[in-house]
Amino acid sequence: METDALIEQVLRRIFVPLEASGRHVHVTKAQAQLLFGHTLTPKRPLSQPGQFLANERVSIIGPKGEFQNVAVLGPEREAAQVEVSLTDARTLGLQPPVRLSGKVENSPGIRLHASRGVVALDSGVIVAQRHIHMRPEDAAHFGVKDKQTVRLQTFTSRPTVFDEVIVRVSKDFETYVHLDYDEANACGMQSGDLGRILT
Amino acid sequence: METDALIEQVLRRIFVPLEASGRHVHVTKAQAQLLFGHTLTPKRPLSQPGQFLANERVSIIGPKGEFQNVAVLGPEREAAQVEVSLTDARTLGLQPPVRLSGKVENSPGIRLHASRGVVALDSGVIVAQRHIHMRPEDAAHFGVKDKQTVRLQTFTSRPTVFDEVIVRVSKDFETYVHLDYDEANACGMQSGDLGRILT
Repeated sequence: METDALIEQVLRRIFVPLEASGRHVHVTKAQAQLLFGHTLTPKRPLSQPGQFLANERVSIIGPKGEFQNVAVLGPEREAAQVEVSLTDARTLGLQPPVRLSGKVENSPGIRLHASRGVVALDSGVIVAQRHIHMRPEDAAHFGVKDKQTVRLQTFTSRPTVFDEVIVRVSKDFETYVHLDYDEANACGMQSGDLGRILT
Repeated sequence: METDALIEQVLRRIFVPLEASGRHVHVTKAQAQLLFGHTLTPKRPLSQPGQFLANERVSIIGPKGEFQNVAVLGPEREAAQVEVSLTDARTLGLQPPVRLSGKVENSPGIRLHASRGVVALDSGVIVAQRHIHMRPEDAAHFGVKDKQTVRLQTFTSRPTVFDEVIVRVSKDFETYVHLDYDEANACGMQSGDLGRILT
C-alpha cells in the first residue's frame, strides 16, 4: 500500500473530515422546469454519492433582502428546500428553524427567481442542523447509531466543540461532517480540516 | 435583598453573560472630523463602561463588496480599527487575521465613507478573537488571569464549547463574553444567554 493511502486510512479511523455547506436550494422537477425551462444539469459531483452542484442558479428573495446566484443542488427532490445560515436569515428577514434536512413543516417561505420564471414557496426555508453523514462501517467503528447526537471537536484555527451534532447513517453516504458557514467560520475551518467524535 | 437580585448574584458566581458584537468601526478624532465634520456623539452606552454606540454611521468598502450603515463605537481611539466576522470578510473580499482588539499590524485596509468625507485605511481590518472582559474580582472568583485562554461552554440553542477564549482583566471592564456574529449564530445565542468557563 502507498504511504499516503495508508496515512489516509489511519486518519479516517480517528478523525472525520469537515465540510462547509453554503446557502443552497433544492427544487422539484416541476419547479426546475418553471425556473429554467428544463431539469437540472450537473456541473460537478458533491461529496455525497449521486448528489451534484447544478449549472443552474437562482436568486432567493426574502422580505428584507436577497441573495443572487445561489447554488442549486441536484438531483431534484419531492419538495423544495432552501438551506441558509442564521446570518443569511437575518439578511433575508426570515426566522427559519434549525432542522434536519427534509423537515420543512411550518418553516418560512421565500421566492425563487431564475432566467425563465419565478416560484413562490409557502415553506421550505431552514437552517440545516449540523450533522455527520456516515457509512455504516464507520458508524460501527466509531460506535454510533443513526439519529444519535454526538459532540464534535474541531481541529481548526479557532478550536471548538460542537454539541448536539446528529449522526445520519446510510450505505448511500460518504462519511463527512456538514457545518453551515456560521459554524465553519466560528471554528475557523479550512478545506481539509478534520474533526473528532466525542461520544 | 430582593429575590431577583439574589438570583442574579448567584448566577453571576456560576455563569458569564454572552454578548454578540456586530461589525463595527473605531476611528480617531481626526478621522471623525473628516468623515462627519465633528467628533462622535453618543447614541447609547455599551456594556463596557465609558464605551458607546455613536449616532454616526459609515459605509465600509472592500475590493469585492461593501456594507452600509455600519456602527461606529466611541470614544475615539489612537488608531482606526474595523472589526468584521469571517462571513463579512468574504463579502468584502478581504482576508483579515483573527486578533485581539488593538493588534492591527499587517492587517488589510479598507475605505470608510460617510456624509462628509472618505477615509482610506492602509490597515486595521481584523476579526476580533473571542474574548471575555472581566472585572478583577470575577477573575479571582473564577481563578483566571489576564491573557489566559479558557474554554467556554455556551448554554444556548446550539450548545457549543469554544476553545481558546482569551480573558482580559481590568477594573475598567464589566464581565461579559464577546462573540462575533459567526460564533453567536453557530451556537444559536439569544440575548440574555449564559456561558460557563471551563478551565
